[in-house]
Amino acid sequence: MIHNHTSIPALEKRYRANLINSLGGFKSLVLIGTRHESGAENLATFSSLFHLGADPALCGIIVRPTQPGINTLHNIQQQKQYTINHVRPAFYREAHQCSAKYLPGESEFEATGLHPYYVNSIHAPFVEESHIRFACETEKIIPIELNETTLVIGRIIYVEVPDEWVGADGFIDLEKANTVTCSGLDSYHTTSRLARLSYAKPDRPVTDLP
Amino acid sequence: MIHNHTSIPALEKRYRANLINSLGGFKSLVLIGTRHESGAENLATFSSLFHLGADPALCGIIVRPTQPGINTLHNIQQQKQYTINHVRPAFYREAHQCSAKYLPGESEFEATGLHPYYVNSIHAPFVEESHIRFACETEKIIPIELNETTLVIGRIIYVEVPDEWVGADGFIDLEKANTVTCSGLDSYHTTSRLARLSYAKPDRPVTDLP
Repeated sequence: MIHNHTSIPALEKRYRANLINSLGGFKSLVLIGTRHESGAENLATFSSLFHLGADPALCGIIVRPTQPGINTLHNIQQQKQYTINHVRPAFYREAHQCSAKYLPGESEFEATGLHPYYVNSIHAPFVEESHIRFACETEKIIPIELNETTLVIGRIIYVEVPDEWVGADGFIDLEKANTVTCSGLDSYHTTSRLARLSYAKPDRPVTDLP
Repeated sequence: MIHNHTSIPALEKRYRANLINSLGGFKSLVLIGTRHESGAENLATFSSLFHLGADPALCGIIVRPTQPGINTLHNIQQQKQYTINHVRPAFYREAHQCSAKYLPGESEFEATGLHPYYVNSIHAPFVEESHIRFACETEKIIPIELNETTLVIGRIIYVEVPDEWVGADGFIDLEKANTVTCSGLDSYHTTSRLARLSYAKPDRPVTDLP
């Protein structure tokens, strides 16, 4: 199958959505927890999380104008904090359900049975069922005028990972933690490690890390 | 393990790099092919690719100032085109090797044995060994001043996927295609599907897609 700059825009809308969403490879799957100024809790499915830097610790997400994330964006703008929660096989269906278009004020926690969980100093809700979770402070909001999406850059201000999955070098074994990855708009996957590889240098072949 | 806004910046540099790079979950792993105005070919490992929209078809990557991607950024700015190539288990070690800091002008294709491949109208090199590949036209370059990275937004102008992996609905079965995902700075994984789930609606439970 080959498409080019003239045939891509001519594809049927739903077909193109599936194709282009699959094309980028496997994606991070997370639930983003926020709180409205009224106290109402919101939980939204995201697959656009990306790493921006470790020093300072920054990450980005893309919020689309037409998704339930419109609540997420409002809350992120107003409250300046949000949580990011990994998904495990035990609740990936509930995570997918959080992408449904609930009315403003309806809580995805109540609708799916996932439980909000709070820690000191973070006023946005975490997901109790999630084992790897962190929180961000809103650092910068950049409108992407090309397609009316919004890039939200957050500074990581809280990290919680069970000790058993954190190596001496800081690496988190997401596979042992059973973190789920996703592809396309609706496909969910667990993983099998090929290897960890040594730091690459021009003058020598890479080797497997233990 | 718990860290907060004061302990995160105080972590040992390499430990923090591993931790924060793992924290975002599984990532898309791709090789980005570009060409210098002199004709020299460049191939760089990226794990920051994210979906921006399907109509128009847009995706984003983050280019760091200190990585070999500095060549990639130059080429993307000058030549306005770049290719994005999925990685299979057969050559994930070569893909990792492309993250080594080669001198400007040294070709990662030559260094790793991967083969450049050209199609009409795209002047940047694809990876012959890759089975799912696409090309972008540079649409917008946004400096992220917070940490001197750069967001490159590309419009997808060419897509090539073997028919056997594309469903009637446009979904690409990346798992059948053996596309590799990565975590942290150096860990590579294949996947096992849990399920594809039906479009989520507030008033009904999700079901498995066939």
